[in-house]
Amino acid sequence: MNNSDLAILVIDENAIRAAIIRDGLLKAGHHNVTVVEELVGVARTIERLSPDVIVIDIENPNRDMLESLFVLSRTVKKPIAMFVDRSDAETIHAAVEAGVSAYVVDGLKQERVKPILDMAISRFNAFSRMAQELEAAKSQLENRKVVDRAKALLMKSRGMDEEKAYALLRRTAMDQNRKIVDVAQSLIMTFEMLER
Amino acid sequence: MNNSDLAILVIDENAIRAAIIRDGLLKAGHHNVTVVEELVGVARTIERLSPDVIVIDIENPNRDMLESLFVLSRTVKKPIAMFVDRSDAETIHAAVEAGVSAYVVDGLKQERVKPILDMAISRFNAFSRMAQELEAAKSQLENRKVVDRAKALLMKSRGMDEEKAYALLRRTAMDQNRKIVDVAQSLIMTFEMLER
Repeated sequence: MNNSDLAILVIDENAIRAAIIRDGLLKAGHHNVTVVEELVGVARTIERLSPDVIVIDIENPNRDMLESLFVLSRTVKKPIAMFVDRSDAETIHAAVEAGVSAYVVDGLKQERVKPILDMAISRFNAFSRMAQELEAAKSQLENRKVVDRAKALLMKSRGMDEEKAYALLRRTAMDQNRKIVDVAQSLIMTFEMLER
Repeated sequence: MNNSDLAILVIDENAIRAAIIRDGLLKAGHHNVTVVEELVGVARTIERLSPDVIVIDIENPNRDMLESLFVLSRTVKKPIAMFVDRSDAETIHAAVEAGVSAYVVDGLKQERVKPILDMAISRFNAFSRMAQELEAAKSQLENRKVVDRAKALLMKSRGMDEEKAYALLRRTAMDQNRKIVDVAQSLIMTFEMLER
């Protein structure tokens, strides 16, 4: 995607500040910008517009508002840049933990909007990539444990050696067009069921 | 550690800007601040002072300077906040990839130094935690593969069943006060050596 085609959603209850952000984006060549001035129902707005990036500006956020935005940040899986006017260390920490890609305290300035957007996107991508790697490594480990357990059950109950047990799981998976781990899972469930 | 005891190293060739950063930190209650005005030899300076956080301010960085700082960022494993006056999307991306915890374009202001420092620390910790989790998951998977391979060699060469093979590895590890994976690795090496 050409960077200037990015669908950017700007959420800002303050029309003047929203204009600063929009102008900053337009000057940087971003033309696909939607500005929403209503913070209430923002989750539905995001779902409806499905933007590539979200910019949220809250001049003076209260704790409840921030908490609900952090919950939002955990669920939307999009780069989010947030501008706030002030923040303590604890809230900054909470923003990072919630996956807010750029959390900018007291730094709203037209020329800075574009680099902050770039930052949010890069940060989000780097984080997502690592999260996916972690997910993959964990699930490989989990799959291996399941397959090993199924192999062991076959070896014990049918006196097969390891290679035969694995070959049987593998052949069944191919015949059934399923993953080996799913076949192994079904086998474990069946053995456990019959053991009761 | 109390946050105000954090050892902060500020690297800034411009004395006026260095003073802005130092004042921002002092006002926020950080008293353990060292300012260095020499960017050359910064790796050695960091090694010598072993700070908890590093703040680098470069008014007008050239590409070589940034590249060497990004290399530094990859190796020091500390939260780094960088202030630069301008930056393109590509360089911002490179900063994120190099693990710069906060990369602030055109945003140096005394009151902002403290929230940016907090941000850099939170970001760094979140990233490190995830990197460690990933490392652990990968090494568990790797260990499991090694142990499985050693088990298979024992089962094949000695006609042991899986449980016996594992018990033998485990007992040897306990006797030798080594990890099972290390015993497995030695066994694999020996089998491969003798097979040649």
